[in-house]
Amino acid sequence: MRSFLGKDIISLKEFGREDFYRVFEVCDRLAPFAYERRNSDLLKHKTLVTAFYQPSTRTRLSSEAAMIRLGGAVTGFSDAKMTRAGDFYQESIRDTFGMLEFYGDAIVMRHFEQGAPAEAARWSSVPILNAGDGWGEHPMQGISDLYTVLKHKGTLDGLHFILDGDLRMRTMHSMSYAVTEFDITVSYVHPPDMGLPDEVKQYIDERNLNYRFVEHIEEAIADADMIYMEPVVQPDYTKARDERSGDVGRTPDNYKVTRELMRKAKSDCMVFHSLPRMDELETAVDKTRHAWYWSEAYYAVVTKMALMALVLGAME
Amino acid sequence: MRSFLGKDIISLKEFGREDFYRVFEVCDRLAPFAYERRNSDLLKHKTLVTAFYQPSTRTRLSSEAAMIRLGGAVTGFSDAKMTRAGDFYQESIRDTFGMLEFYGDAIVMRHFEQGAPAEAARWSSVPILNAGDGWGEHPMQGISDLYTVLKHKGTLDGLHFILDGDLRMRTMHSMSYAVTEFDITVSYVHPPDMGLPDEVKQYIDERNLNYRFVEHIEEAIADADMIYMEPVVQPDYTKARDERSGDVGRTPDNYKVTRELMRKAKSDCMVFHSLPRMDELETAVDKTRHAWYWSEAYYAVVTKMALMALVLGAME
Amino acid sequence: MRSFLGKDIISLKEFGREDFYRVFEVCDRLAPFAYERRNSDLLKHKTLVTAFYQPSTRTRLSSEAAMIRLGGAVTGFSDAKMTRAGDFYQESIRDTFGMLEFYGDAIVMRHFEQGAPAEAARWSSVPILNAGDGWGEHPMQGISDLYTVLKHKGTLDGLHFILDGDLRMRTMHSMSYAVTEFDITVSYVHPPDMGLPDEVKQYIDERNLNYRFVEHIEEAIADADMIYMEPVVQPDYTKARDERSGDVGRTPDNYKVTRELMRKAKSDCMVFHSLPRMDELETAVDKTRHAWYWSEAYYAVVTKMALMALVLGAME
Repeated sequence: MRSFLGKDIISLKEFGREDFYRVFEVCDRLAPFAYERRNSDLLKHKTLVTAFYQPSTRTRLSSEAAMIRLGGAVTGFSDAKMTRAGDFYQESIRDTFGMLEFYGDAIVMRHFEQGAPAEAARWSSVPILNAGDGWGEHPMQGISDLYTVLKHKGTLDGLHFILDGDLRMRTMHSMSYAVTEFDITVSYVHPPDMGLPDEVKQYIDERNLNYRFVEHIEEAIADADMIYMEPVVQPDYTKARDERSGDVGRTPDNYKVTRELMRKAKSDCMVFHSLPRMDELETAVDKTRHAWYWSEAYYAVVTKMALMALVLGAME
Repeated sequence: MRSFLGKDIISLKEFGREDFYRVFEVCDRLAPFAYERRNSDLLKHKTLVTAFYQPSTRTRLSSEAAMIRLGGAVTGFSDAKMTRAGDFYQESIRDTFGMLEFYGDAIVMRHFEQGAPAEAARWSSVPILNAGDGWGEHPMQGISDLYTVLKHKGTLDGLHFILDGDLRMRTMHSMSYAVTEFDITVSYVHPPDMGLPDEVKQYIDERNLNYRFVEHIEEAIADADMIYMEPVVQPDYTKARDERSGDVGRTPDNYKVTRELMRKAKSDCMVFHSLPRMDELETAVDKTRHAWYWSEAYYAVVTKMALMALVLGAME
Repeated sequence: MRSFLGKDIISLKEFGREDFYRVFEVCDRLAPFAYERRNSDLLKHKTLVTAFYQPSTRTRLSSEAAMIRLGGAVTGFSDAKMTRAGDFYQESIRDTFGMLEFYGDAIVMRHFEQGAPAEAARWSSVPILNAGDGWGEHPMQGISDLYTVLKHKGTLDGLHFILDGDLRMRTMHSMSYAVTEFDITVSYVHPPDMGLPDEVKQYIDERNLNYRFVEHIEEAIADADMIYMEPVVQPDYTKARDERSGDVGRTPDNYKVTRELMRKAKSDCMVFHSLPRMDELETAVDKTRHAWYWSEAYYAVVTKMALMALVLGAME
């Protein structure tokens, strides 16, 4: 990937080490607009379409915020139920994206089915940015989180990441693909039925990623530089909201990040969580230097600014 | 209709031949912004309000995209359930539009009841653009589709249109009203219980439109210049989504457009469909020169740019 | 409150007389943009986030319209169901606003729980503007309505307000707090189970507000300068929409504003209603000089423009 102009961002499998650094460099150049809270004019003639087939706060709003910081405009839909695109027999991706491409100059897309953004990219003449596809990937989140680590640690090489929780989740896949391009060691810890998909395992094996599986997060905590989390329990929606309190406390200790656990970690170990959380991440951690999960929101805006500027040709 | 400044766009009954050509001329002037994917500054001081009482992807997004291409801003609602305007005993149109007029400078409105935009126009001091009202009309779609035909054929006069499917649908009414202003011949083909409403039939009779009804689309296909389609079957919502496959194939051959049928058509016969589709329009047609239904999305943006520029006085 | 820069707008308890006049002065300066329907460039580098946990037409759209008139951009969500912020066990305000603050430069927030905006303000580094919090307050509405009265009467001192209807509603609280800063007399009239909360009553008692309770609005109508209304009945949602007609007519005469009642009022008595209405406000009043409830929508835009310009430092 030499140039990002007009490219789709579908999977981190397609990102080489140089591609990541190209994005990080543009992040550095655009970050002041986010930091100084000042919308620029860089993409003032461009329109972003948000095509969210599943509700999202963080990813949709950070995408919109990024486009707005670049001076661009936004249109789109935030839920398939709000559109006829999700109606009928689920209108085909082709029929929908053969239309959406005329409404803007790039499309950020979340879909409940793995592969939908790749399918959309076949039919759209404007860049598709994958904002999460079912059990597939979440590439922009992965880039953003790596950038956050880079800014804090100064490097990505020589680090040790813990990927903790439901490894079937898309953030875990994108991060697993990405780390193979760096000198990063990974400890995976997950409940028995929430392991890495074969496709991901095969990918990291082929690239000789230095990784291991541990039973309990404590086994890996001592020299970890970063903990990457996804919940392992889901709300019990059969109960009324105020009866669900019994749900809390269900996460086994093996996967939980508590203030007590973090006393065993290095002082600059960073905790990432895509939020919202259940009880796997104790709120007591919020008040420690380890809490990076709100900062993720800031870096998500910066990274999306960089990606949009690149695919729309404003930084070539 | 001499000037469009401040005018409502409610029904194509109000459009004379010269009005259509005035809009088409402005379309030609504004099309480069859409084609070159570059938002202009023409309406940078203006705000569009989208008041959609029914979900819509194509019409809402093309309206927003058009305003954005003109440099304007957009606010509004995309579903009545999302607002208190659809709450209570359905708040009166007067109470709602006596408010909405202060939030922007033109209002694009879709409503589930025929006549609602006309009622809104009584109470709003800013232009109301009808984006579909129940079983009423869909005037902007009609203008857009005529413009598409004009650009491809070079003329609207001397053409033969087939209006195929559920003729109770609003697109069929607006198109029927519009063609009376041109030297256009129409073949209507529809299932027994989906005929033209009396109001429409009387209108075209009074204007001496050259039309006929046929039983099977094959009867009219040979010299047709354009086929205008609406589905004749609806999804069976009593079935779960993945059990609905039996629904497909229910459209009688009389109303179906297939690749085989199109072999009998003229080589430049254009197929229009407002989408989404059921099985009345075979996907095999997508790969032929007859498939104009995705281009409709592009022309919808251009036409709405022209209409907004006109009613907001940017092109006077 | 000397400067509004960076301040939250949570409660009118925090507004002194000088603060109100400071806002009114900025309203006067910005009103031409709203009146002349022309978006300015004043906040062209700024982004507003709308965080609406409850549907709203008037308040959300007037907030967006105000930001747009100032040249700013808007992102956000219009219903908690549309976001993951309302999902799970209701994600904590801290987790949500620790994120939202990065997506824009000020946040307009409506929430179903009293106190939520104050909680959000603890965690957000950007100003929070309360757009209604459960049974709490609706401060921007209160400021807007006082500004409307000021523009029409030329003064706020020496006036007599009737606060009529369900006094548990948030608009009633904000207005009650506000009037204590002026030489305003209040007549409250309310159904037995819809009285002023203790907190509000104590506040106006401590400030020695000149007020009384009346049983019937007729007792106070003769010298009233303004009537401030909230519905006292709610739709019977157990009935189908078209069976609810029996609901109309349920508001007791004590709280109803009719054309007949207004004949007993001063000729410049202003009727305010936040709409939508049930049957407590007769539509026959719409055609009288007393009907100010649509104008409220205009003044709401102007007031929100002033507040945003102030908290974002564009008018310092």
